[in-house]
Amino acid sequence: MRSFASDNNARVHHEILEAIIRANDGDVISYGDDVYTQRAIEKFKEIFGKDIDVYFVYNGTGANVLALTAITKPFNAIIASPMSHINVDECGAVEKSSGCKIITVPSSDGKIRIDDIKKLLHAKGVEHHSQPKVISITQSTEVGTVYTVEEIKEITKFAHENDMYVHMDGARIANAAASLNKSLREITKDAGVDVLSFGGTKNGMMFGEAVVFFNRELSKDFKFVRKQGTQLHSKMRYISAQFEALLSNDLWLKNAKHANEMAQYLEEKVKEIDEIKLTQRVEANAVFAIMPRKAIEKLQEKYFFYIWDEEKDEVRWMTSFDTKKEDIDLFVEEIKRAMRDF
Amino acid sequence: MRSFASDNNARVHHEILEAIIRANDGDVISYGDDVYTQRAIEKFKEIFGKDIDVYFVYNGTGANVLALTAITKPFNAIIASPMSHINVDECGAVEKSSGCKIITVPSSDGKIRIDDIKKLLHAKGVEHHSQPKVISITQSTEVGTVYTVEEIKEITKFAHENDMYVHMDGARIANAAASLNKSLREITKDAGVDVLSFGGTKNGMMFGEAVVFFNRELSKDFKFVRKQGTQLHSKMRYISAQFEALLSNDLWLKNAKHANEMAQYLEEKVKEIDEIKLTQRVEANAVFAIMPRKAIEKLQEKYFFYIWDEEKDEVRWMTSFDTKKEDIDLFVEEIKRAMRDF
Amino acid sequence: MRSFASDNNARVHHEILEAIIRANDGDVISYGDDVYTQRAIEKFKEIFGKDIDVYFVYNGTGANVLALTAITKPFNAIIASPMSHINVDECGAVEKSSGCKIITVPSSDGKIRIDDIKKLLHAKGVEHHSQPKVISITQSTEVGTVYTVEEIKEITKFAHENDMYVHMDGARIANAAASLNKSLREITKDAGVDVLSFGGTKNGMMFGEAVVFFNRELSKDFKFVRKQGTQLHSKMRYISAQFEALLSNDLWLKNAKHANEMAQYLEEKVKEIDEIKLTQRVEANAVFAIMPRKAIEKLQEKYFFYIWDEEKDEVRWMTSFDTKKEDIDLFVEEIKRAMRDF
Amino acid sequence: MRSFASDNNARVHHEILEAIIRANDGDVISYGDDVYTQRAIEKFKEIFGKDIDVYFVYNGTGANVLALTAITKPFNAIIASPMSHINVDECGAVEKSSGCKIITVPSSDGKIRIDDIKKLLHAKGVEHHSQPKVISITQSTEVGTVYTVEEIKEITKFAHENDMYVHMDGARIANAAASLNKSLREITKDAGVDVLSFGGTKNGMMFGEAVVFFNRELSKDFKFVRKQGTQLHSKMRYISAQFEALLSNDLWLKNAKHANEMAQYLEEKVKEIDEIKLTQRVEANAVFAIMPRKAIEKLQEKYFFYIWDEEKDEVRWMTSFDTKKEDIDLFVEEIKRAMRDF
Repeated sequence: MRSFASDNNARVHHEILEAIIRANDGDVISYGDDVYTQRAIEKFKEIFGKDIDVYFVYNGTGANVLALTAITKPFNAIIASPMSHINVDECGAVEKSSGCKIITVPSSDGKIRIDDIKKLLHAKGVEHHSQPKVISITQSTEVGTVYTVEEIKEITKFAHENDMYVHMDGARIANAAASLNKSLREITKDAGVDVLSFGGTKNGMMFGEAVVFFNRELSKDFKFVRKQGTQLHSKMRYISAQFEALLSNDLWLKNAKHANEMAQYLEEKVKEIDEIKLTQRVEANAVFAIMPRKAIEKLQEKYFFYIWDEEKDEVRWMTSFDTKKEDIDLFVEEIKRAMRDF
Repeated sequence: MRSFASDNNARVHHEILEAIIRANDGDVISYGDDVYTQRAIEKFKEIFGKDIDVYFVYNGTGANVLALTAITKPFNAIIASPMSHINVDECGAVEKSSGCKIITVPSSDGKIRIDDIKKLLHAKGVEHHSQPKVISITQSTEVGTVYTVEEIKEITKFAHENDMYVHMDGARIANAAASLNKSLREITKDAGVDVLSFGGTKNGMMFGEAVVFFNRELSKDFKFVRKQGTQLHSKMRYISAQFEALLSNDLWLKNAKHANEMAQYLEEKVKEIDEIKLTQRVEANAVFAIMPRKAIEKLQEKYFFYIWDEEKDEVRWMTSFDTKKEDIDLFVEEIKRAMRDF
Repeated sequence: MRSFASDNNARVHHEILEAIIRANDGDVISYGDDVYTQRAIEKFKEIFGKDIDVYFVYNGTGANVLALTAITKPFNAIIASPMSHINVDECGAVEKSSGCKIITVPSSDGKIRIDDIKKLLHAKGVEHHSQPKVISITQSTEVGTVYTVEEIKEITKFAHENDMYVHMDGARIANAAASLNKSLREITKDAGVDVLSFGGTKNGMMFGEAVVFFNRELSKDFKFVRKQGTQLHSKMRYISAQFEALLSNDLWLKNAKHANEMAQYLEEKVKEIDEIKLTQRVEANAVFAIMPRKAIEKLQEKYFFYIWDEEKDEVRWMTSFDTKKEDIDLFVEEIKRAMRDF
Repeated sequence: MRSFASDNNARVHHEILEAIIRANDGDVISYGDDVYTQRAIEKFKEIFGKDIDVYFVYNGTGANVLALTAITKPFNAIIASPMSHINVDECGAVEKSSGCKIITVPSSDGKIRIDDIKKLLHAKGVEHHSQPKVISITQSTEVGTVYTVEEIKEITKFAHENDMYVHMDGARIANAAASLNKSLREITKDAGVDVLSFGGTKNGMMFGEAVVFFNRELSKDFKFVRKQGTQLHSKMRYISAQFEALLSNDLWLKNAKHANEMAQYLEEKVKEIDEIKLTQRVEANAVFAIMPRKAIEKLQEKYFFYIWDEEKDEVRWMTSFDTKKEDIDLFVEEIKRAMRDF
């Protein structure tokens, strides 16, 4: 049965699995000094330009934590949305690894705005306060919305004018690119982002994410940060081969586009149901909705998914590259039954 | 061409890859709440008994670092061999994560002894000194030797009498069991070990290690330690399925036994070569040798491998489940050529 | 000229200085194994009862940071007011030392309430979230208000029912006791507090604060935490002698009472000035007021003090044991002049 | 009774206490923005030249830990003597704060040598190993020996050629200068040291040490490091006034010279006693000796002091600015009695 709990409930895309199988041939030097890794990095350079540095890690938390650790000192503050993954879903990993404080600015749609960030700048230079150094934004956001290129540029311009960096948590960067109908480069490097957590696992990979430095000043120690951060894979070829496949033949885009379309389809169907209120714009592969608590409980007897906001009875449903229309039809049927029978 | 640089240069064993392929079927709840993980844990319980706790992580550094972080406080000291992986090959990961100091005691064969550890105990209770709390031993050791069951018991007894724990870095625990012709349980849990880093990657897996708690008091917070330590995999089934395969049909043992035999075969062949001096007993899957620096350089033109001790011109050669006799014959031929031509 | 910037702008009370001078006699064993420290601890036990553990440290940040480090693990969350010293005025020291996340709940008067804290408990047991373990309250608060005994009891009861501890930042605990007309014991230990940062410096000492454990389970490693945390003084007698003097003849109370009365006197005088709006109840030794930005700037030409809220033009004025009525009269005159002339 | 356990068992020098008393006058802005701090910094600049940065902290552990934290990243290694204070007497404070590994090189006399350090450089650039970045030397050393200017220069030259910094733990820098009959500047800044922990407490102060940056590139974030490291004193004038007194009228030198002379006098007297073997050159204010364990125990009934090496029955005796010849005569009498009666 299809899960709407998370895009990481999906399996591995068959083209990626096949790439793994092909890579399973003979001995290869470990830790990334191999041809698979070279080719995967080449793919990243085709997409983002030659002047980048790319490092593969195991997972999204690792990518975020190490990217942020690499570009901060412990007395820095990282500015983020209250609902950002780094703030609420990584068990304090950023604080422990970097020593930094995460300071949140208000957000109702997952995006943050410079008017709110500005208010934090009075702390600059004052030794009693954590020093703002990084703005971390998530693209697409944790609630399925997407920053426009202009919004990103406004943030990166503000950051750079104020001696700060911009980190982008791109666990779902592919969904954002698909949503905006822009290239990956346009919404990251060309928009002024300094370092990107590039998501693989949620878009059809088995494991593996990439930390992509557009500001190469920031990457010079990263190989040590990665090793000390326990995120250096020995049999690296098996991450690299996946990335090569994901970035070939626009597979990353096809997967993301499909997931987004499935979310839109789910949105349409849910809209038709009275007494369910959609709470966020559906711009990527997530649907957020408020429905009666009893109906949630009824539905959860059949489907496992997360309650996003316990107080508001707000739920989150995610689609993936592997979600089918029929899966959604069946799911919507169950939603309707739950709404009727609770 | 076969590599003798490390057992992690080998590919994934075909039975394990097939298990991954079988697991690639439909949606599954993430983070370990799935049937593959249940079954893999069941396999561990068959081997070690029901009264254990098992957690899967990405890699050996992650397993060591998080096991040690979980059972220490930052003012503790961890006692280890100077050549231990946690001391020299993890870029200070243990210190950064746990905050602890690693204190080494002398060792020429990779094993440590309680006579040396005893001398550290005067620090106990004195606030100026890091407080010894864990003895960490590697089995098989970093130089391919193997602790006997009696040696382990002596260490665990001493540790427990002195309010300390014993961690075993078992990146190559299978090779040790094969070498000793003992069960995994006899050389770990039954010998008094508190927590074990159980190696998968070096014995035929693609990625994934396990932290196995025999002292279950120590595991109660581990799920938080793992998540905060960036070592929780979302698509957990792909680690679990590998472990299930590795622990089925004695695959772990067959792989390790074969690797060990290949090391013995290499040892025999190398012994015949004048002017190469073997420096460690070959008890697992490693061969250590001193040879003229020029010959090393010559050989490295053909084969990549590590110089273990730059001052002594000592090299390390590793075998794996995938090493063939013919590979060794070819390698030995090249060694001979290098010895002749340098 | 008297400062209204902070109570730490005051000098050392003469009785305390005299105690230091008396202690400056011959050699004494360092690190606290001396008679001055014994006597100072005895004073604490007279006040709080025999079943406590007391450790002296250098400063308030040290006391807070080490108390919180000692009673948490890095994956824990510490719940506090957004305006708490640990959250905004310690440059991220708590995060760096403990590894924990500080989670704030709303507060307009410096106090926090269990209705807001309750909402955080859904994170308990879920590995993705920092685990709430400590509620940290400040008494008197950073805005000069004071928790009643009942309010404290409600919080400690709630904390203990939910497997959490209560830390009290008592940098101004004396002012709170004076304000409530309660004993130090009634508003801390008897109200269920687990560990207290007991302030000395702001109440007439030169340097030195105490960490007082009422829950002695929590103190067993504290001597190591203090040493590793760089807060163990070698010539300990010079902190101890101060505490002995502060806790003798109710000096702590007289100092605090006087400071509080001076704040009330300032409040009265300021109330008479049109267009200055007092923003917090004056329950301890602080006065918060909103006045026109131009008048603030005018006044700051004569007096250094802090703007509390840049956006609201809210200022903070503190009184100390050493503030005189005449000082206030002069200050109020300047305020009036600033209000008139700006 | 005079203590020979440590120079920090001594009281505060009367000129320093008088400076404190003079500073205890009225209100002064906190955290160092005061005239006492200005004047104290001026004194440092008179000694070391204008192109330095000076920060006051509470204690020697704080000075060492924060100096090292400021100039490293967590993946760095700090090279030091096995008997260095940072390695054995700070309860792992450097590791916890900086995240770095301390790597020791052999030393029998407290000094380290570049021939031993050179062997560590093969780790440079290899991601698996902590990256050597700082050489930390103690002057005078923990065993009372003193680096010559030439020895320091050799180390700093080597360090800088290899992209490393030199930290000097100068808890007893005054004793070293007195011993070498050199200026403070000649043995630090002019010898190429990058950052110095400048000791005050062991040379007659009540509390307070200074971190002096000669390489000002390294100091730019130090105020944040100090605050986050819990080492910023609010009533700063009371540290500053002490340093002003210590650095006036060569008080620092007189104190150190006297302490050194007392150690020499003790050495002479002890030399005359058969069966006591002096184990280190007496170049500063420490005497190390081996004597029968029973005699140690006998002597310790009268005098508290530390056993330096439990295995060798080696003891440490320290003198201070406040030690008198008569104190030594009495002590030597007791030593003789212990040697006779045990």
